[in-house]
Amino acid sequence: MSETVTAAVLLIGDEILSGRTQDSNLQTIAKVLGPAGVQVMESRIIADRPEAIVAALNALRGAYDYVLTTGGIGPTHDDKTADAVAEAFGVSIDIRADARAILEGHYGGAQFLNEARLRMARIPEGARLIANPVSKAPGFQLGNVFVMAGVPSVMRGMLEDVVPHMRGGAVVKSVTVRGKGMRESELAAPLAALEREMVGLSFGSYPFFGADGFGASVVVRGTDPAALDAATERLIAMARALGVEPVVEQQD
Amino acid sequence: MSETVTAAVLLIGDEILSGRTQDSNLQTIAKVLGPAGVQVMESRIIADRPEAIVAALNALRGAYDYVLTTGGIGPTHDDKTADAVAEAFGVSIDIRADARAILEGHYGGAQFLNEARLRMARIPEGARLIANPVSKAPGFQLGNVFVMAGVPSVMRGMLEDVVPHMRGGAVVKSVTVRGKGMRESELAAPLAALEREMVGLSFGSYPFFGADGFGASVVVRGTDPAALDAATERLIAMARALGVEPVVEQQD
Repeated sequence: MSETVTAAVLLIGDEILSGRTQDSNLQTIAKVLGPAGVQVMESRIIADRPEAIVAALNALRGAYDYVLTTGGIGPTHDDKTADAVAEAFGVSIDIRADARAILEGHYGGAQFLNEARLRMARIPEGARLIANPVSKAPGFQLGNVFVMAGVPSVMRGMLEDVVPHMRGGAVVKSVTVRGKGMRESELAAPLAALEREMVGLSFGSYPFFGADGFGASVVVRGTDPAALDAATERLIAMARALGVEPVVEQQD
Repeated sequence: MSETVTAAVLLIGDEILSGRTQDSNLQTIAKVLGPAGVQVMESRIIADRPEAIVAALNALRGAYDYVLTTGGIGPTHDDKTADAVAEAFGVSIDIRADARAILEGHYGGAQFLNEARLRMARIPEGARLIANPVSKAPGFQLGNVFVMAGVPSVMRGMLEDVVPHMRGGAVVKSVTVRGKGMRESELAAPLAALEREMVGLSFGSYPFFGADGFGASVVVRGTDPAALDAATERLIAMARALGVEPVVEQQD
């Protein structure tokens, strides 16, 4: 069985914490990393404050195989991520020729690179550039930390140049067994017994309520397809024992 | 000027980290707490693992005035939050009579309270119950930690019984000045100068790209309405100097 490879996602931006913006980057990242064999174990959302960024980076990069950050690498004074990453790693940061060349090409010449745009060519010492197919200004990878833009379309583009640089481990697959009218309180005991029996799988139970009634979904996750299949059969039988014909969805 | 009152939001649930579910609770909480004078400074999203919950709770409850958690207080084995909160505070936890009475009333009698449903009456010693107007099973407050359900409609209901138990501080208001065609790289220098001049306000700059063109929004936040008004005038002038007529939105 392959090993588990883990990641943390660090979302940097006052606008998420104030509620002005609804983050979507975490979900995008998790859905791309999961099938690549990298499990997102934790996420933190912090403000654009250098000391908060440094502290979170140093906590997370030691605890997980990879850290992916989004936000704070644009041209304005509130873009503090690149400098904070350099500080966290204890390396220098300066405008780098290859990053500068990318911006020159994009903006049509060196004469269009003002101080603000040049901020986007500031790269910590020893980092690899991450390609930005959308708006060109690159992200970067330093050690096990991948630094990406916060704008979702740009982040998605950069992610294409992140995943190939990760070592993938065991791929966790999941199956959802959704039962309309199924009560969590009736499921709880047989589900707990099933989890005890089927070591290596994890089971989550999620109630739903809506205009068309209530029910519960059970999600089983694991890396062993045969075990997942066996668990799915047991969950279907469990739902039927409660008088419910469940809907089963396989997910990657 | 009133003091700053801070909060952290701890979202507990494998389903957010796997990308299966898109969280909306953070934004709901931030939008309710902000006008009440409580600033969300950090959020963490962690898995349903007791040791992860205990560690995050103990880190956050010492660092901020309040911690709000969502998720993990249902009837099934994967609902581990209540026990983890008790462990973090070093107090005991057991089925409590008042919580049990609420469930009995809701389910129509003690005979309908199986072991699973009774899990939802497990309350750490010394906690205050948080009313749940939606599905009755209560949340609870222990010290500066408010423990709520993860289902968004239930969480919103519980939040009504959370905010009145917080001490509100300075209310941060924000104004957004949105300029179509405005370039962040041209804004950067005057904006940095404005931030240096207007101490006590924070300025964020957010580029946008879409089918109808590109531009940037500047968000200025602060607790002093007169300073916000002055900054807004300056930002409008800054946009006009770049040939852009901006749209201004006041936000609470």
